[in-house]
Amino acid sequence: MAINDKVTIIPLGGLGEIGKNMTVIKVNQDLLIIDCGLMFPEDEMLGIDAVIPDISYLTENKNAIKGIILTHGHEDHIGALPYILKDLSVPVYGTRLTLALAQNKLKEQAIQTNATFHALKPREIEKIGPFRVELLRLCHSIPDSAAVVIHTSAGTVLYTGDFKFDQTPVDGQLSDYYRLSQLGEKGVLALLSDSTNAERTGFTPSERALYEKIEEIFRLSKSRIIITTFPSSLYRIQQTFWVAAKYNRKIAIISKSMRNVLDVAYQHGYLDVPPGLLVDPEQWQQIPNNEVVLMTTGHQGEPLSALTRGSWGDGRQITYQRGDTVIISSNPGAGNQKTIARTVDALVRMGADVYHESANVHVSGHASQEELKMMLNLIKPKYFMPIQGEYRMLVLHAKLAKELGLADENIFILENGQVLEVSSQKGAITSKVTAGRILVDGLGVGDVGNIVLRDRRQLSQDGILIVVLTISKETGQVVAGPDMVSRGFVYVREAEELMEEAKIKVKQALEKSDERKATEWAAIKTNVRDVLSKFLYEKTRRRPMILPIIMEV
Amino acid sequence: MAINDKVTIIPLGGLGEIGKNMTVIKVNQDLLIIDCGLMFPEDEMLGIDAVIPDISYLTENKNAIKGIILTHGHEDHIGALPYILKDLSVPVYGTRLTLALAQNKLKEQAIQTNATFHALKPREIEKIGPFRVELLRLCHSIPDSAAVVIHTSAGTVLYTGDFKFDQTPVDGQLSDYYRLSQLGEKGVLALLSDSTNAERTGFTPSERALYEKIEEIFRLSKSRIIITTFPSSLYRIQQTFWVAAKYNRKIAIISKSMRNVLDVAYQHGYLDVPPGLLVDPEQWQQIPNNEVVLMTTGHQGEPLSALTRGSWGDGRQITYQRGDTVIISSNPGAGNQKTIARTVDALVRMGADVYHESANVHVSGHASQEELKMMLNLIKPKYFMPIQGEYRMLVLHAKLAKELGLADENIFILENGQVLEVSSQKGAITSKVTAGRILVDGLGVGDVGNIVLRDRRQLSQDGILIVVLTISKETGQVVAGPDMVSRGFVYVREAEELMEEAKIKVKQALEKSDERKATEWAAIKTNVRDVLSKFLYEKTRRRPMILPIIMEV
Repeated sequence: MAINDKVTIIPLGGLGEIGKNMTVIKVNQDLLIIDCGLMFPEDEMLGIDAVIPDISYLTENKNAIKGIILTHGHEDHIGALPYILKDLSVPVYGTRLTLALAQNKLKEQAIQTNATFHALKPREIEKIGPFRVELLRLCHSIPDSAAVVIHTSAGTVLYTGDFKFDQTPVDGQLSDYYRLSQLGEKGVLALLSDSTNAERTGFTPSERALYEKIEEIFRLSKSRIIITTFPSSLYRIQQTFWVAAKYNRKIAIISKSMRNVLDVAYQHGYLDVPPGLLVDPEQWQQIPNNEVVLMTTGHQGEPLSALTRGSWGDGRQITYQRGDTVIISSNPGAGNQKTIARTVDALVRMGADVYHESANVHVSGHASQEELKMMLNLIKPKYFMPIQGEYRMLVLHAKLAKELGLADENIFILENGQVLEVSSQKGAITSKVTAGRILVDGLGVGDVGNIVLRDRRQLSQDGILIVVLTISKETGQVVAGPDMVSRGFVYVREAEELMEEAKIKVKQALEKSDERKATEWAAIKTNVRDVLSKFLYEKTRRRPMILPIIMEV
Repeated sequence: MAINDKVTIIPLGGLGEIGKNMTVIKVNQDLLIIDCGLMFPEDEMLGIDAVIPDISYLTENKNAIKGIILTHGHEDHIGALPYILKDLSVPVYGTRLTLALAQNKLKEQAIQTNATFHALKPREIEKIGPFRVELLRLCHSIPDSAAVVIHTSAGTVLYTGDFKFDQTPVDGQLSDYYRLSQLGEKGVLALLSDSTNAERTGFTPSERALYEKIEEIFRLSKSRIIITTFPSSLYRIQQTFWVAAKYNRKIAIISKSMRNVLDVAYQHGYLDVPPGLLVDPEQWQQIPNNEVVLMTTGHQGEPLSALTRGSWGDGRQITYQRGDTVIISSNPGAGNQKTIARTVDALVRMGADVYHESANVHVSGHASQEELKMMLNLIKPKYFMPIQGEYRMLVLHAKLAKELGLADENIFILENGQVLEVSSQKGAITSKVTAGRILVDGLGVGDVGNIVLRDRRQLSQDGILIVVLTISKETGQVVAGPDMVSRGFVYVREAEELMEEAKIKVKQALEKSDERKATEWAAIKTNVRDVLSKFLYEKTRRRPMILPIIMEV
């Protein structure tokens, strides 16, 4: 065997988490990147807009990168592209719709790049450096989703991306069973497969299951229908279009980002828009209530935010009316049930009929256990690495593979950054590269770290108390202050007495400092902080951030 | 008919929400309070420990209050008692265990009160002012739960509290079907019934269903078993005791608050503790792993917090080991799924076998739709008011009553504070009294309001930037500053340039102010805030709180 008898697999995102999917395949010194996703922030990441993978490993090996290949057009697979292409100018590959959506993202964020874009047809083999790359159709909740097959001299690696085995896909494009099984028959070195639904038994229902449900809601509705969903849930939107046309309703797409995505899909022939269906979003108020459908999404594609704020993505307000039908067709993923419940409550209070999770207006786009087993049985890989899931999901997925007869030592549960080397002889985790989370807040990428987050957390719990002193340069004496300002701590008008007492405490502390000639600012600050912190905790059982500021005149 | 031909019902908590249950029954000028609960804070109530009902209406009518009657010993029914009894010294009634738990709460919080406590037996009628009050056994997840029946000259009101129709209750104490149906036969003026599970079809399983599940887990476990649950889930704890004894394991109750609650239950004969079962919580490490069970809860009775922090309620640490079995038996209520998922993930990573929601180690303590219908059919009330639930649940419960034949005009969905008057002739919402939420933060009750919360929210999103200036009293000139300090905004070492630019902006703004002789502080502050806010948003797309402070020397 030559030097290229092994393939190295380096996940930079998507393991032990849902989102920011990114995996590097390395042969000799050449790198190929699969997917480039972002993750929506978790609750405790206060003020953060998005999370992207740490790509230090890639920037350090810039020249070795041959390309980025995308599996499909969802945020958790293409959303970090605008940030990454700023640093890396490499060719981007994917199916036609996926590339168009990626380019739309760059346009929306006004990103200039020299990167070139190359659309691939399914089953077509493209040579990218030493990699022979092929995309294979797999069903998901958006058209043109694909698995990535990487043929190398050391063997074939198959990366599923998101998938489910939908037997009745909305656009009729079935998963490529033939090619999958043919690869399995020939022999696949390593399978990397989606673990998002590894906790769910059985099969995931078809996207088409939603059609009847949507139709029933349209049949029962006597006034406006308001639908909130992800712009990229294209199959769902397609079916809504068909039902609306059948029931002679017009649709106004309220949110601009949704219009952009739908425009892209339509321009490339992935969306069937019945003639006369869509109306100008400014004009819908001229249409009778029982003939209109309003579709929207919210900030960052989060369908609920528009509803919960009672406003649309572009700032316009909507007043709900008795008789409105509201369909909330979002992913009831962990974490937003409470928001959904509160939203539903508010809408019911306003007299709307609300259809959400329990009304089956959402189906998952990810394979359940029986489908995961089927993928394993089609591919029959030598090595298996569960990807795309929280840790317990990866463990469950690995367990499924074991049940199907894969040897324990050929199954690898990795953490982001761990390096897996596989060859026809053996597989092993050999080292670790830098991997992690970069937080995006506004225009800042990576400038919010643990210290800033820790401060935000403390501020969010008990607020802040600022103590300002002015000290004379000459004498070292306090010439003004201590003045105190608080925010988020107590409502000051109700706490005047507390503040007066606190001032006295500070003055006493300063007098003592003075005696000891502790004119060092740091010492004074520490002293003030300690005295106040103790006093306030005793009085209120709260721990506001205490910030002494000393001015010198 | 005399002046007392009507009963007035005033909910002060528990409507449109889960928790802080409190309802006032009024006849003539006399008031009787049912329950006195707290609510755990919602996510957006940053830093808040608990929420209690606004009792302005009660303090304004102090002398009219004849007593407080409690349905059962859970936080959402007795948790506000320590706060309320500070202001109102009135007799408290309830079943024996409920009263003992309420008194334990007062003791834990070191509350002194002159209030007297009166234990009532089920079916025993007690005269409290003009009210003839009776408690009736209803099954729930804690022993000694009861409905409150209030007999007045204008008719009978029945308040269910929390209940389910458990056919095999752990302590053998069935719901009092005879007395319920007898009341129904004689005629009940108004039924106020629990809506918590109005969204669930069918029947809720018996608490006893957990026994087999717990036993199976014990049978499979080969090392330590760690159980986290609410201290007040007494039936669940009882069954765990029985299973542990059967499998010859010792139990260490790690959390102090749980030990207190179990002590109370044991002392009053509501907990069967097999001899030799319990061991000193300090001593468990001397017991072999496969012979020990650790039970705990966390802060505020929230079972997860001990696990997520990797520490126990009283500060001691536990290191999880490969082979540990962890049972998370908490209420998978809206809002904590994400926390549960993250906890399970961390435990699986450490090698533990984890049983949680999906493993059926929790059953609800609340009646599902068929049981709610049964309650309505047993009582056959003239008027019906769904209580204890979010708005959509109240609406669904009302719909169930309508389906059973109750007239629309006899069903009342109220908001907290609305006043419902019912008599044999008619029922109507007639007015509104003060009702609302009082936030408890540390020792402060009600001193955190909307302004403080709004500030905490802003601080949590983008942090704070403080600008300090010292101005000469005589000349009106800036003699020191502007100095800037930020917290939670950007990591300052990475943003020195930004801060320098910002300082220049402030100086420019001040010079302009100076020219216009705008020596008024408020004007200077507004000017600084506007200039900085605009500048920082342009540069960072963030909106930190900007706090200008001016010192005078």
